[in-house]
Amino acid sequence: MTLIDGQLEQADNATPASVDLAVSTVVFALRPHPITGEDTIWLPLVRRIREPFLGQWALPGGPLAPEDDLAASAAKSLNRTTGLKPRYLEQLYAFGNVNRSPDRVVSIVYWALVRASEDTRESIGENVEWFVADEIGQLAFDHNDIVNYALTRLRTKITWSPIAHGFLDPEFTLAQLRSVHESVLGRQLDPANFRRQLLSTGFIEPTGTSVQGASHRPPALYRFIPREKRNEP
Amino acid sequence: MTLIDGQLEQADNATPASVDLAVSTVVFALRPHPITGEDTIWLPLVRRIREPFLGQWALPGGPLAPEDDLAASAAKSLNRTTGLKPRYLEQLYAFGNVNRSPDRVVSIVYWALVRASEDTRESIGENVEWFVADEIGQLAFDHNDIVNYALTRLRTKITWSPIAHGFLDPEFTLAQLRSVHESVLGRQLDPANFRRQLLSTGFIEPTGTSVQGASHRPPALYRFIPREKRNEP
Repeated sequence: MTLIDGQLEQADNATPASVDLAVSTVVFALRPHPITGEDTIWLPLVRRIREPFLGQWALPGGPLAPEDDLAASAAKSLNRTTGLKPRYLEQLYAFGNVNRSPDRVVSIVYWALVRASEDTRESIGENVEWFVADEIGQLAFDHNDIVNYALTRLRTKITWSPIAHGFLDPEFTLAQLRSVHESVLGRQLDPANFRRQLLSTGFIEPTGTSVQGASHRPPALYRFIPREKRNEP
Repeated sequence: MTLIDGQLEQADNATPASVDLAVSTVVFALRPHPITGEDTIWLPLVRRIREPFLGQWALPGGPLAPEDDLAASAAKSLNRTTGLKPRYLEQLYAFGNVNRSPDRVVSIVYWALVRASEDTRESIGENVEWFVADEIGQLAFDHNDIVNYALTRLRTKITWSPIAHGFLDPEFTLAQLRSVHESVLGRQLDPANFRRQLLSTGFIEPTGTSVQGASHRPPALYRFIPREKRNEP
């Protein structure tokens, strides 16, 4: 038996208890900017009430409980903080640089999108506040890096995936969908180009109905096509 | 202070030492299939020499050392096993289901692609073997799930990203690039369509030179355009 194998067979076996593990969540919602009134990306943060980083804002999260799967842990801490139970909750990345925390902590980060109709503030904790994602100050740990990573992922992914779904009600108009893309990307999109591009992706289909009680040309409603029914190239 | 906040502020702070952390790596290389002779996807596995799963094959990896960043840990265990130092090494996913191991272990998995010219077997451990990725038996832990996840990611990502780069020398012909795509996808691709699609992605550019010493129509050489020089939509 070689030293090589003596080290290797440790994989997935008892680890020295020297690295701690946390699960945190970045939750994005679209709400009007307090000054411009334009919809923009917000996220909830939690004020730390203990060292390190006492008094600074941080992402909602906590240590992984032995009885919880990773996504369950993310959903639990999110629900405790914000009262939200997002439909879209996905693993983002594991952040584990040696210097990201005074103790050695690896944080597995999930991200969630919530639609306007889910975005209540009922059971929000007293140390929780929502912020405009592009205007947060210095966060605890490496959480600014994490938020920036999540924003980049959101802005990239919305151009090639049906992720806008997470911000919309099940049925929506093309103008509402375009508005979500514009709010995420922070720029205007040409309506005709947007319509052509979105319809060519095969992500959405008309429901066959239109907005009720609208004017003489009520806009058509669309829905996202579930992955298993999509014709992907 | 509420119980809500009392729990929340634990994020990224001292975790109870009840969940262990490992880093494992899926390494893909293209080599001829032993029966068909067609290039196909291979990966190295390590035979376990201790319980649990004594004698079964598992991904290379090990516990995260406190002094190592995540990617450094993946690179180290990979180098110990296979002698490889892949240029492409990326975080794949964190696997943390409660029942994936007798102990509670979360495994952060990296994946790597190695090109034929890197793919030496010099310093391979005695309990390490390469397998055809689609023909592995029952692995330890949830490592079959991990390998399948990585294969799906590879086969999806190659259709919309310049990931084939990881399997190729810096300069290559379109036929070599198409061969990589065909080996990964396991099916033939139409040369004219492939050429048109690849050139439209903006990932590659002609080097201006051709294969030396070839016939009367030497094929042109291409290279991948670095991300920072690419014109992405």
